Amino acid sequence: MNKQIILLPGDGVGKEIMESAKHVLNTIASEFGHSFTFHQHAIGGEAIDNNGTPLPEDTINACRQADAILLGAVGGKKWDSLPGHMRPEKGLLGIRKMLGLFANLRPVKGFAPLLHASPLKEDVIKGSDILIIRELTGGLYFGQPSERRENGDAVVDTLSYHRSEMERIIDKAFQSARLRNNHLTSVDKANVLESSRMWREIVNEKSKDYPDVTVEHVLVDAAAMKLITQPNQFDVIVTENLFGDILSDEASVLTGSLGMLPSASIRSDGVGLYEPVHGSAPDIAGKGIANPMGMILSAAMMLKYSFGMEEEAAEIEEAVHDALEQGYHTPDLQIKGGKQVTTKEMTEIVVDNL
Amino acid sequence: MNKQIILLPGDGVGKEIMESAKHVLNTIASEFGHSFTFHQHAIGGEAIDNNGTPLPEDTINACRQADAILLGAVGGKKWDSLPGHMRPEKGLLGIRKMLGLFANLRPVKGFAPLLHASPLKEDVIKGSDILIIRELTGGLYFGQPSERRENGDAVVDTLSYHRSEMERIIDKAFQSARLRNNHLTSVDKANVLESSRMWREIVNEKSKDYPDVTVEHVLVDAAAMKLITQPNQFDVIVTENLFGDILSDEASVLTGSLGMLPSASIRSDGVGLYEPVHGSAPDIAGKGIANPMGMILSAAMMLKYSFGMEEEAAEIEEAVHDALEQGYHTPDLQIKGGKQVTTKEMTEIVVDNL
Ligand SMILES: CC(C)[C@H](C(=O)O)[C@@H](O)C(=O)O
Ligand SMILES: CC(C)[C@H](C(=O)O)[C@@H](O)C(=O)O
Repeated sequence: MNKQIILLPGDGVGKEIMESAKHVLNTIASEFGHSFTFHQHAIGGEAIDNNGTPLPEDTINACRQADAILLGAVGGKKWDSLPGHMRPEKGLLGIRKMLGLFANLRPVKGFAPLLHASPLKEDVIKGSDILIIRELTGGLYFGQPSERRENGDAVVDTLSYHRSEMERIIDKAFQSARLRNNHLTSVDKANVLESSRMWREIVNEKSKDYPDVTVEHVLVDAAAMKLITQPNQFDVIVTENLFGDILSDEASVLTGSLGMLPSASIRSDGVGLYEPVHGSAPDIAGKGIANPMGMILSAAMMLKYSFGMEEEAAEIEEAVHDALEQGYHTPDLQIKGGKQVTTKEMTEIVVDNL
Repeated sequence: MNKQIILLPGDGVGKEIMESAKHVLNTIASEFGHSFTFHQHAIGGEAIDNNGTPLPEDTINACRQADAILLGAVGGKKWDSLPGHMRPEKGLLGIRKMLGLFANLRPVKGFAPLLHASPLKEDVIKGSDILIIRELTGGLYFGQPSERRENGDAVVDTLSYHRSEMERIIDKAFQSARLRNNHLTSVDKANVLESSRMWREIVNEKSKDYPDVTVEHVLVDAAAMKLITQPNQFDVIVTENLFGDILSDEASVLTGSLGMLPSASIRSDGVGLYEPVHGSAPDIAGKGIANPMGMILSAAMMLKYSFGMEEEAAEIEEAVHDALEQGYHTPDLQIKGGKQVTTKEMTEIVVDNL
């Protein structure tokens, strides 16, 4: 298969880890006889510096024609004091919305050799394997009006959803639960928000179409507690945009190895954007020591979700897993009796394991 | 001093633990020569059953004239499927709004004999002592419009704040930081929400009036992570209503002894409502084994924040602390080599320690 892949390395460590993903993908391509064509474009702070905008036209056009997009990371102190519309994050929000990438998938699963670094006690975190599905193009992030009023003395933001926006993400969640352990936790704040009550109604309606999936409703405040006290009681979690932002980040630190975590932002036809959960980490940028695993596993998610290449994706996941079992780790992690390596070395080890 | 205290035991274990608070308060009253007059009224599920509404007129009128209010807990499965305006929580939201109780204070501090029950590793949770200050009468909880649209195919909720609502809670937070370790973490989502950008501006303006307080801005998703990875890096946290709901509940499980935690919801003139963080726990209601400590410590907060009785409050806190050091605990907790007791026994032990 021939696939057009847009690379958006972005800021900080983004460039270094993107090289790792490319190397791994090229290896997979030759092994399986695929052809991946890479097109690199600017986004975020780098684009602000070079093009005067976090999301240049050229990048938008390229992304519109892509089969999939890999993103490194955006942002950094340098651009933190710019006005809202000129901030690196705007590029990311813009792409999500423009391409209609409504489903954000965030798997959280520990790796045995790394679990000792979890802030949670071993018996609490053990066995946790969660897929958080966050609605990504609606809610408070995009609702209008979002403005100052009364000469600047008041302000409103708007949490707005259309039924179809809720339906498609909830369908996605039920389907994902079917491919896992048939358990879906829907998170809302139905005791306060009208949007949450509508959300809950739709989940209940939809559940009739998926009688094999057990559904549980949990309030967002209770979910924030349960993620810490009983993380292994979850299978698939589905929730709206802002709740998903908070809960998926909360969940990302539970295993103690944030640098390992991938994410996917997809739409129904399979086009998607894939990025590691960690940020641009300006403090270690350029040093060649960033952990490439989150990016490499994001590339694996791309193969699976955008290209339907399940076998290829599984091979990458296994190669990453094996590298850890062999004791290799970048400086952000610790493995007892293990060996600390650089970004490049780690990438070579994964490639050798393929 | 003569004080009029409204008691709203509410549902589930609420009645049992309210008796404990009354007993402790009566003991303090005779020791210090105060007179506390208690007036008991209905709220929540019980009020729905008896009066057809979660917040009867009679309760509202009594609360309006009170010096302070003690609340046990509201809610339970029995009333979970009632329509929005008839749910027990509406009583709680109604009272907060009606009395203008805009500042919710949630201290989170572990007790040495109980810390072993924390889901977090000991070196992570050790030394944590956080005061979360949540705005309680604005934002998405009360903003209008909050309604279905397009014949039920769309929905909006509104996050709305007036400058003065932000100013008063932010002032409260700076003042609270001064009484503690002079460190304030302001939590927002300024990279997405206009309301958060206004919030951040006001925090920055106000910080000039409190040059002795160090201010840090943290995005809500990052705060949800940091509460788990570095809970002992926080002193005072201030945030808007919904973020505060999620983060304060997340924080409440960190120490492993939710049943111990009190809360206060106050306004500027000192009138306040005090309630334990835990819920109505219908599964153990009526068995006489509920942990009364969260309620007793809430009564202590009342003495301190509503009545200015610092010494009296400190004495209760010490008595509670001593009871744990002596090894006494209700069945929700464990103390190595300790002794399990009932609600009544625990209350007597605290009273004896006074
Ligand atoms: C950068 C920011 C706008 C973004 C979000 O809130 O969606 C980020 O936190 C994320 O979760 O990808
Ligand atoms: C019962 C509910 C409406 C309430 C809230 O969300 O404020 C509760 O969760 C709380 O935090 O006191």
